[in-house]
Amino acid sequence: MHFCGFMQLFTKEKLRQIAIDVFCVMGSSTKDAALAADVLVNADIRGIDSHGVSRLVGYVGLWEAGRINMTPKVDIVRERKSTFTIDGDGGLGLVVAPKAMRIAIERAKEYGSGWGAIQNSNHFGIAGYHAMMALPHDMIGMAMTNATPFIPPTHSKQAMLGTNPIAYAFPTDKRRPLVVDLATASVARGKIEIAKREGKQIPKGWMVDKHGNTSQNVDELKDGGMLTPLGSLEELSSHKGYALGSLVDVMTGVLSGANYGKWVPPFVSFLPMLPNLPGKGLGHFVGAMEIEGFRPASEFKASMDHWIESFKSADRIKADQEVFVPGEKEYLIEEERSVNGIPLNDVVVKDLEGLGKKFGLSLL
Amino acid sequence: MHFCGFMQLFTKEKLRQIAIDVFCVMGSSTKDAALAADVLVNADIRGIDSHGVSRLVGYVGLWEAGRINMTPKVDIVRERKSTFTIDGDGGLGLVVAPKAMRIAIERAKEYGSGWGAIQNSNHFGIAGYHAMMALPHDMIGMAMTNATPFIPPTHSKQAMLGTNPIAYAFPTDKRRPLVVDLATASVARGKIEIAKREGKQIPKGWMVDKHGNTSQNVDELKDGGMLTPLGSLEELSSHKGYALGSLVDVMTGVLSGANYGKWVPPFVSFLPMLPNLPGKGLGHFVGAMEIEGFRPASEFKASMDHWIESFKSADRIKADQEVFVPGEKEYLIEEERSVNGIPLNDVVVKDLEGLGKKFGLSLL
Repeated sequence: MHFCGFMQLFTKEKLRQIAIDVFCVMGSSTKDAALAADVLVNADIRGIDSHGVSRLVGYVGLWEAGRINMTPKVDIVRERKSTFTIDGDGGLGLVVAPKAMRIAIERAKEYGSGWGAIQNSNHFGIAGYHAMMALPHDMIGMAMTNATPFIPPTHSKQAMLGTNPIAYAFPTDKRRPLVVDLATASVARGKIEIAKREGKQIPKGWMVDKHGNTSQNVDELKDGGMLTPLGSLEELSSHKGYALGSLVDVMTGVLSGANYGKWVPPFVSFLPMLPNLPGKGLGHFVGAMEIEGFRPASEFKASMDHWIESFKSADRIKADQEVFVPGEKEYLIEEERSVNGIPLNDVVVKDLEGLGKKFGLSLL
Repeated sequence: MHFCGFMQLFTKEKLRQIAIDVFCVMGSSTKDAALAADVLVNADIRGIDSHGVSRLVGYVGLWEAGRINMTPKVDIVRERKSTFTIDGDGGLGLVVAPKAMRIAIERAKEYGSGWGAIQNSNHFGIAGYHAMMALPHDMIGMAMTNATPFIPPTHSKQAMLGTNPIAYAFPTDKRRPLVVDLATASVARGKIEIAKREGKQIPKGWMVDKHGNTSQNVDELKDGGMLTPLGSLEELSSHKGYALGSLVDVMTGVLSGANYGKWVPPFVSFLPMLPNLPGKGLGHFVGAMEIEGFRPASEFKASMDHWIESFKSADRIKADQEVFVPGEKEYLIEEERSVNGIPLNDVVVKDLEGLGKKFGLSLL
């Protein structure tokens, strides 16, 4: 986390109420608004600030542009026992994805596993939230989504893939659950913007300019610059990050009948949609697998604790530099913020005040 | 591909027969030997030379050390409709994994998807082979395995993860199938060894020394040096490669009841097994999903062609530098080698001659 400028602290409940108020005034049902708010605030409390209430302005922009349906009828359009496809009816991904995940969990109870492809949706927040919905059921959860094209394939200078995240959540016994949640980009755009604000040089490999060449000039992000796939540079296997992003794009976009590649609808309303869309909206893919179908859940969870303990006690490079397991840092932030509050920087606070004015709400 | 020293050309059939002869003399049934040989030779014809017949010497070494059962009874030990766990009975992964994949495909016909965790197995060759078994059934295939620990987690200097590959195969209509098959390491050990033979400097990020620090001295690979997770360096998000490797280790090792982390049995027979093993043998995870459960298969395959064509025609950085889609290069090599033969370098040829002498076979 990087705090810049003036910070204000909020409780989770306060941020949740702000998000609910905004979604309700946009026309959402109270139930859907509460669901969407829960996804957003879960990002804030876990320290993934870029995907929390700071995004409200973006959702409002898309809604004003007529790109989000606040009263979607989320329906199964095709199914085959453990698998199904959902039409999100142009709704908020924050609402559509958790509904699809609930169905996946129901299918997993019936068939051992459940897998849903989702078309006609929008940005779904943090992938980890949806994967983690499986945890209380002693299931492994997974979620993927495609996203605004901002990454060129290896050898290309055209943005064809989004940050396309992959998340898996694994239940544990006494330890915190293991949550893998990663964008298939080398770094998030937010990290480059923070470096810019702080006047720091970024490492070679974080971004390319509009010609596809490695660039360390952060100003180029606003002039056709793009992110890189995980791996960063061709010599460090950026083709693997490109392959992972492709895998996510096919599972979420092609399999569901959503858009894919350069046609994925951008999150920002000022960017136009491309013509000749091959599908509907944005795509997700979610899944749940019951542990009991593979191994007694108690045994698996004890082994997960053992796995985590063995990684936590792996020999360190520097004695004072801890080895973290995937998802651990987010749990640590959640524990800290639950006590001390969630910091929002002045830009986000101003954005929320602006939304309050726009809608005649006293949000803060 | 890098050819060093004297090269000899072989047909696919010849290499297949060599592998069958070796597996048979090790005690394999003719049927199992043919299956295992097919997996190996599929790697050779696709240009993944490190995973082809060059590995025969390694399998023989493990068998001589009593670590491979050549007449395994491969059985389902637990199941729940779309999910199951297989005990590989200490057999060759080359035999155990395709058998598990066949079951996954059967389950997918019945329930829309099929998922198998495999314990008590050994090295299974290229992950892509198993994933691609789903293609003729109009299914998406996937396969993962854990492997000899050779990668330290971020902040650690202890090898806790193998190259832990992930493979997904997607059927197409007129284009070659899209096959994602990648190790979650930054680069393969073989690539570093080739650089060493050729006296070339390796890029920063390919390996670390025994203290966990970045090293460009390839000699350190034999002195406790290790590979890095995809991402290569902490500043380029090596924690994401570490998270992906962890995801594979848990799905293959913990979920199945196999070994995981530092306890995964090494491929080379001269390295001892660690004491206090938490599971049985090495672990895999395979799966198959019927396209029809999500979308009409013909529609999906036409969209896959369109996806591939749009990526192939993405704007290039350099006009003469083609944009490849995942798995394309391997298909191109397969097409070339099917005509011209498969080159084996003199080290591999000598190894095979040595096996011939050992077993009293005229292999070449």
